[in-house]
Amino acid sequence: MSQRTVFFISDETGVTAETLGHSLLTQFEGVTFRQVTLPFLSSPQKAQEAVDRINLTAELEGVRPIIFSTLVNDDLRVLFQNSNGLYLDFFDAFLAPLEKELEQRSSHAAGRAHGMSNLQKYNQRIDATNFALASDDGGSNRDYDRADLVLVGVSRSGKTPTCLYLALQYGIYAANYPLADDDFERGDLPAVLKPVKEKLYGLTISAERLQQIRKERRADGRYATIQQVRFELREAEKLFRRLGIPFLDTTQSSIEEIASTILDKTAIERRVRP
Amino acid sequence: MSQRTVFFISDETGVTAETLGHSLLTQFEGVTFRQVTLPFLSSPQKAQEAVDRINLTAELEGVRPIIFSTLVNDDLRVLFQNSNGLYLDFFDAFLAPLEKELEQRSSHAAGRAHGMSNLQKYNQRIDATNFALASDDGGSNRDYDRADLVLVGVSRSGKTPTCLYLALQYGIYAANYPLADDDFERGDLPAVLKPVKEKLYGLTISAERLQQIRKERRADGRYATIQQVRFELREAEKLFRRLGIPFLDTTQSSIEEIASTILDKTAIERRVRP
Repeated sequence: MSQRTVFFISDETGVTAETLGHSLLTQFEGVTFRQVTLPFLSSPQKAQEAVDRINLTAELEGVRPIIFSTLVNDDLRVLFQNSNGLYLDFFDAFLAPLEKELEQRSSHAAGRAHGMSNLQKYNQRIDATNFALASDDGGSNRDYDRADLVLVGVSRSGKTPTCLYLALQYGIYAANYPLADDDFERGDLPAVLKPVKEKLYGLTISAERLQQIRKERRADGRYATIQQVRFELREAEKLFRRLGIPFLDTTQSSIEEIASTILDKTAIERRVRP
Repeated sequence: MSQRTVFFISDETGVTAETLGHSLLTQFEGVTFRQVTLPFLSSPQKAQEAVDRINLTAELEGVRPIIFSTLVNDDLRVLFQNSNGLYLDFFDAFLAPLEKELEQRSSHAAGRAHGMSNLQKYNQRIDATNFALASDDGGSNRDYDRADLVLVGVSRSGKTPTCLYLALQYGIYAANYPLADDDFERGDLPAVLKPVKEKLYGLTISAERLQQIRKERRADGRYATIQQVRFELREAEKLFRRLGIPFLDTTQSSIEEIASTILDKTAIERRVRP
């Protein structure tokens, strides 16, 4: 398997270059990519240091590094265009057609996407994160009135990472409530969830995968036995079906996929955009 | 201010299209964008429904919607190319030069970037998130040996969201410890932090901004007074300087900027890539 070094370069965090670059790289299976992010290239000096590093890599490895760029400063871009790497500019390719369509010049200003240009949006994400933390795992905060969404499911079905991702990425207020033996004996939702039934979304997972996850957390006791895991999942799904709570199986899904699926199915609006 | 509708379309979650699309849109200040994500367009039928929606929007608004696409299925892409929107294809523009450079055809397979194709990476992010939660706020888990990084700073200086972001985005194990009056009276790190001094990174923030944040959380009592806030920040920065702990001011920084800056300064390796 061949190897190639990839640089993500940016005037700002590099997150955008990383995200699109990584999506592209996953389309090439036969190559191992060594990935390096060089963020905050805001001066000619920093940019030149990055170019030197890229050129040195080219020399040492005998193949051109690949450069994914979201640089907006024209002077700095020229430096990389003239480097010994393959320069792929994510902004350049799309700003021209957008300028034409919108009949407006782009601002060519760095630091907008992940910057603090919109304090309100930033506060929204932080507030949503704090909400997710305070109301995690059926926690002290049961202020479900503020919730856009309440995830329900058995312990370790994926509720917490999904809530945190929805908060950090989209500023969505997502609480979660763990279904446990109490709920199954009662055969009904706890009283606290009844008024917000239309905000509920269920998560389930295969018994084998759940057992594996639980074993890593707490190997002994009933918690990670296949009998207990099967019982809880069966009861939880029974409850979802009986009460008409939509649910999805997280076994084969990443956090992004779980989050995107729920937003797609529920039509909950993203409060902020990445 | 003019308005334009933007569609992010994808065979998978749409996160990549959203991220690059949003970065591009922030370059156009005079326009308000109504943003719609249409993920999981995996069949001709779903794609046609999306095309119909785009065409209806074009008709109702009298201007072309903008379409940011990471579709990889060639048959589906044609449908959108022939729609009444401006079709901008993030993959198309870059796959050809990459194929040439890597001397390999791309797989043209959907669902790779945010999918479960790499279970190990997925588990890494979940494990790092659980670590961040368990060791949040100096919590019960003081297993700092496993930590890649331990953030220190006064309450509400940005530690928790940064730790969670580093875990979810990069699978990095980040703990945090809140500096408080005890620590300032002692004038030194708590014993538990001393063995991991080289993993510490400090966060600070302006007194005015911190007071504002704390007021929203708990308005009464000493916690949110400007005197207390100033005292804590002064003592924390004194401690950082005396012990040689690197630190940064988060007042003007987003979560992405704080995280990227710390990784850049410490050279901590990203364990997984977005």
